[in-house]
Amino acid sequence: MKEEIATTLASVGEFPLIREFFQPLRLEGVAGVVAGIGDDAAVLAVPRTQQLLATVDALIEGIHFSATDDPFLLGEKALRVNLSDIAAMGGRPNWYLLSVGLPGETPSQWLTEFTRGLRGCGERFGVTIVGGNTTGSPSGRTIHVTMFGLVGQGRALTRGVAEVGDRIFVTGTIGDATLGLAVRQGGLIGVDEADRRYLEGRLDLPEPRVDMGVALADAAAARGVIDVSDGLVADLGHICTASGKGARLDVGRIPLSEAARRLVLRDPALMRRILTGGEDYELLFTVAPGAVEMVHTLSGRVGVPVTEIGEIVAGAEVEVVAADGERLVLEQGGWRHF
Amino acid sequence: MKEEIATTLASVGEFPLIREFFQPLRLEGVAGVVAGIGDDAAVLAVPRTQQLLATVDALIEGIHFSATDDPFLLGEKALRVNLSDIAAMGGRPNWYLLSVGLPGETPSQWLTEFTRGLRGCGERFGVTIVGGNTTGSPSGRTIHVTMFGLVGQGRALTRGVAEVGDRIFVTGTIGDATLGLAVRQGGLIGVDEADRRYLEGRLDLPEPRVDMGVALADAAAARGVIDVSDGLVADLGHICTASGKGARLDVGRIPLSEAARRLVLRDPALMRRILTGGEDYELLFTVAPGAVEMVHTLSGRVGVPVTEIGEIVAGAEVEVVAADGERLVLEQGGWRHF
Repeated sequence: MKEEIATTLASVGEFPLIREFFQPLRLEGVAGVVAGIGDDAAVLAVPRTQQLLATVDALIEGIHFSATDDPFLLGEKALRVNLSDIAAMGGRPNWYLLSVGLPGETPSQWLTEFTRGLRGCGERFGVTIVGGNTTGSPSGRTIHVTMFGLVGQGRALTRGVAEVGDRIFVTGTIGDATLGLAVRQGGLIGVDEADRRYLEGRLDLPEPRVDMGVALADAAAARGVIDVSDGLVADLGHICTASGKGARLDVGRIPLSEAARRLVLRDPALMRRILTGGEDYELLFTVAPGAVEMVHTLSGRVGVPVTEIGEIVAGAEVEVVAADGERLVLEQGGWRHF
Repeated sequence: MKEEIATTLASVGEFPLIREFFQPLRLEGVAGVVAGIGDDAAVLAVPRTQQLLATVDALIEGIHFSATDDPFLLGEKALRVNLSDIAAMGGRPNWYLLSVGLPGETPSQWLTEFTRGLRGCGERFGVTIVGGNTTGSPSGRTIHVTMFGLVGQGRALTRGVAEVGDRIFVTGTIGDATLGLAVRQGGLIGVDEADRRYLEGRLDLPEPRVDMGVALADAAAARGVIDVSDGLVADLGHICTASGKGARLDVGRIPLSEAARRLVLRDPALMRRILTGGEDYELLFTVAPGAVEMVHTLSGRVGVPVTEIGEIVAGAEVEVVAADGERLVLEQGGWRHF
């Protein structure tokens, strides 16, 4: 940055903006970038043993975040939610395109922090910007990230191949993000300070399970795979729909963090929110009975805990079975975007 | 569509929206789509003789279009501006990702027309949707398209390789889009009805010069290449900056349509707008003196007119020389996004 720092983007102008904020997001040493940011399109080399994965996700002010949210965390999250999609396909992420709409009155300090978050996350996961687009916005910031990854030919983990009898697994713990959101929005009171911080951290900095996804793909150990973004029941429903199968989900086996467990003990009705809340970005996947042992081995090797939470069955419905054997009825399968 | 047509997107819901509007954008027969819309990421096969091109561009309500603009034309344009970026790299476009932010009160009829435009353009240029993202928007529609293309290894046409002595060429005619915008905004009065329609048509339906870009790349006939989106002088400036060269632009040689010529005859000051207005989406490229004949041959073969309008020189500036030899000074090189 120059010594005289412009206060808003309008006073910076488009091309200095790209030069000062977005070009520094380039990481050296990421393979395959023949030409990156600064031309009409990126030129990218895909090794011939690999297939390309591509996904796009958006964070919209007023929907996914507010003007006062920490821009550093937003930068981190904008990449993480997309990294999770690549992880759910079993791929290794490598490149991204960034398309932002920013009101002219956006403080340049906001962009400094936002790009610091992007850069931090990019460095940690080894992904580099390869291009993008910057435009004004009449109201509200919008952030669209297109993320790329590579996966061995024929090894991508898709949703539509679950079979009856497959065990259903999930990584990490479920419900933390939605409880973090409830705490932040004031919907849960009297929550311990450490628990509050933990839950909000899970909401702000979801952990894309890249290494676990790659391990599952390399070992061909998983069948139907998705990341939990819409909610556990909804995302299991997506696997079922794509596979033409049903599922039985055992509520009592769903892995909860210590913080979530404390809140559920206090108010068991929160379990419904945990089942339907989104944004955990854990991997949800089905495993043939004969591959269950291998999945536990991979879990140990990668250092990501996995828990068996149900089974793929015939039919088309997700049956949610409570610890006492009772079947739960959910009003809403997950997060609605409209 | 069902018999009972929902009136707004809020009443349709996210997943039916994807099923009814976006999945039908898939084209059969486009090579390389291993898994398209409907999973966490698209799985795409890049032939081993080819490199991948990827670019993203956005159309934002209140910046690039208004709520009352024809959604069919918007769908067409959302793809065309991106196709032009692939053309400017010498690539053949094939796949796209669509990320939209739509207010819940958007009439579903708007989306019907918008996707009809996408589909029409996709069919004409042989590009298929392979995934995307749909989210709400608190105010205004936003459309982000990530477009992919393929180009032979090492054959991509970049900006930064213009040499002193290169002739500068442009396809088609320049200035029609900005004059169309001026007419539409009421800034030009007394314009002939046929001219008005022609100019607005050039604004609404720019013609991505895909075949010419591919021909230039296959024949290795062009050096610095860009598409005219920011404005002729600004985009020539981008080539100069990337190449570390200057340029001389001969105003008298800039190709104008009959409609533009009539307007300039009436008001010569419009030439300034033609030099700096954007959105023509013609190709601007430099050619080694020895390759000029080949470029004319390719132009005839592809059926896209080209015109020589200047020369790359030493230095770092774009010098704009009027027909009488006088040097023009432009206050602003092109379109500012903020």
